[in-house]
Amino acid sequence: MATLIEAQVEKWHRFVVEQDGQILDALLAEEVVFRSPFLWKPKEGKAVTIQYLSAAVRVFKNFEYLREFVQDNAAALEFKAQVGELTVKGIDLIQFDQDGQIIDFEVMIRPASGLQALGAAMAKQLAEANPS
Amino acid sequence: MATLIEAQVEKWHRFVVEQDGQILDALLAEEVVFRSPFLWKPKEGKAVTIQYLSAAVRVFKNFEYLREFVQDNAAALEFKAQVGELTVKGIDLIQFDQDGQIIDFEVMIRPASGLQALGAAMAKQLAEANPS
Repeated sequence: MATLIEAQVEKWHRFVVEQDGQILDALLAEEVVFRSPFLWKPKEGKAVTIQYLSAAVRVFKNFEYLREFVQDNAAALEFKAQVGELTVKGIDLIQFDQDGQIIDFEVMIRPASGLQALGAAMAKQLAEANPS
Repeated sequence: MATLIEAQVEKWHRFVVEQDGQILDALLAEEVVFRSPFLWKPKEGKAVTIQYLSAAVRVFKNFEYLREFVQDNAAALEFKAQVGELTVKGIDLIQFDQDGQIIDFEVMIRPASGLQALGAAMAKQLAEANPS
């Protein structure tokens, strides 16, 4: 099982680098839940999760993964990135199902100033990508 | 090595439950660095790290660890807790040295509203515990 999850984490890394929507689409379960670092209420379903994760990889600059943990069917991926002028640290907490698809994706960010900047940048990115 | 780190993580759990300063003192290296979820600038050294971690365990209510990861000399401990009326999620990213002492302790919290409430509650708790 660890090998399957590690292979899926590698695919996630490829998505972050290549920003290839097909890789992301194959990774996510239909019923995936996205838990934003900014808001408590989760976003439910594949379509909205793709919107948020695609916006996130466009907003973060100089994105770099640091310590990585894989245990049971979950991964915790520490990262460092820039949001505008600010450097932030963060973690992706990713839960996979038994087939290796992502069913829960939770993100935490520090510090507070960087989280606020990310919230603003994400809102702008989402509005540009999904004009009403 | 995993066994040593797992044993140290168990001691950390005991500190969270019992709030026994002697347990915390034995866990921390003299040169430990504390990275707050709220501020970017790290707090350096054992004395100030004890202040912050002791204040944190008093501020959080209904504290509960969820998924836990131990890999190499590090641990990532997901938790849920209440800060006043708000529920927050968080993660402790703990780096141990080769003797199993904690040399780096980083905390991330979501969502933004809970992080703001935590910042205010921590400032109050630190002021009460360390009157000038």
